[in-house]
Amino acid sequence: MSEFVFFYSPGACSLAIHAALEHAGADFEPVRVDLRQNQQLAPNYLLLNPQGRVPTLVAGGIVLTETVAIADFLDRRFPAAGLLPRDDIARALAQAAIQRLSSDIHPLYRALWITDWFAEDPGAHPAMKATAAERLKAFHAELEQRLAEGRWGQGEPTGFLAYYTGVFLRWSAAVAPEGLGPASEALRRRLANDPAMARVLAREGVSLDSLKRATD
Amino acid sequence: MSEFVFFYSPGACSLAIHAALEHAGADFEPVRVDLRQNQQLAPNYLLLNPQGRVPTLVAGGIVLTETVAIADFLDRRFPAAGLLPRDDIARALAQAAIQRLSSDIHPLYRALWITDWFAEDPGAHPAMKATAAERLKAFHAELEQRLAEGRWGQGEPTGFLAYYTGVFLRWSAAVAPEGLGPASEALRRRLANDPAMARVLAREGVSLDSLKRATD
Ligand SMILES: N[C@@H](CCC(=O)N[C@@H](CS)C(=O)NCC(=O)O)C(=O)O
Ligand SMILES: N[C@@H](CCC(=O)N[C@@H](CS)C(=O)NCC(=O)O)C(=O)O
Repeated sequence: MSEFVFFYSPGACSLAIHAALEHAGADFEPVRVDLRQNQQLAPNYLLLNPQGRVPTLVAGGIVLTETVAIADFLDRRFPAAGLLPRDDIARALAQAAIQRLSSDIHPLYRALWITDWFAEDPGAHPAMKATAAERLKAFHAELEQRLAEGRWGQGEPTGFLAYYTGVFLRWSAAVAPEGLGPASEALRRRLANDPAMARVLAREGVSLDSLKRATD
Repeated sequence: MSEFVFFYSPGACSLAIHAALEHAGADFEPVRVDLRQNQQLAPNYLLLNPQGRVPTLVAGGIVLTETVAIADFLDRRFPAAGLLPRDDIARALAQAAIQRLSSDIHPLYRALWITDWFAEDPGAHPAMKATAAERLKAFHAELEQRLAEGRWGQGEPTGFLAYYTGVFLRWSAAVAPEGLGPASEALRRRLANDPAMARVLAREGVSLDSLKRATD
């Protein structure tokens, strides 16, 4: 039996944890919960994750949820993997970027795609989708500038921050189909060539590339 | 000069960091940025926090943002304060609860109160506010049950998780004006009597009590 059981959906935010587990050399069994087929609503899965979301990590009989909480857990279990910076300030700046993604940007993608979560009345959806797309486009422009200036975290993003940012680069085709700026594209290429990320992209059957992504 | 400069708005999510700083015995200068007067949009403040949000912590010339990132930073700087659990599993469960608040519940309060963030068209707002209020009410019922069963984090919430939960207990009057269940009310009373929390509530001029809160 593996040490961890890891539940993911192809190309979802769980991709960042998937890459982190692979990068750390963790002994884990990946289990696909395909959101496109609503498998997150299967009664057995809801027992593990009552919100019906990915990722979920089962570690020694304990069920762990929430991407950022799992990343912190893996950083402690695999200190040599460099998932989070060791230096206090570098770490706080990386955590701020991670938190920006999880608490601010991820909810905007949710408003764009799972609009129902924020308004059950479909009459409100077009206005919500328009605002979400506009704010996300502005975020991707800000991210490009911060990456170019080494201010997304401190310096070049590494470890979990890099993997988690990759999820949002992947999603960006929805709001910036023309592609991103040079710093964002360089990070996307670097991640696509990262050995751990490349293995999990192949396992999930998705790509980080915005042009390919449209057909995923 | 103090070691830290801390920017907060009375009763905002910054309250959790305010209490954590006080509990840790940190040497900090509190600076009020009153959201009710839009002081977060003052040009000088936007230089520190371009999103125009609280909290912000300045530490040794470095500007730190994002509540959860600052909490992790303070936990490392003040290891004896017990802001986050030391045990890996207890910590992961506390972090999952913290992350639930920051990435899921805080955005719903934002949708309720700063609805414009999620839709510039005011025509969409009534439907959004209705859904947010409904989901938040369901969350507070879930929180009550988890607190009663010792499943909000692991066992009785302590440290930063307790302080951060206090922010949401305070806000809950907006969606549960009739008050909360016994486990939530017991946590609210315990927090109101916590020496650090009591000092910062007095400094901010707010209360954790839902009945008093309506007039804050
Ligand atoms: N705050 C959670 C959010 C998880 C989340 O929203 N996951 C999405 C995929 S990226 C999901 O499972 N959505 C399915 C749904 O909401 O039905 C985390 O960061 O882990
Ligand atoms: N993800 C951020 C969110 C911060 C946030 O939304 N703060 C609110 C107060 S609770 C704020 O400053 N709102 C003012 C505004 O958005 O105009 C964090 O957790 O620190």
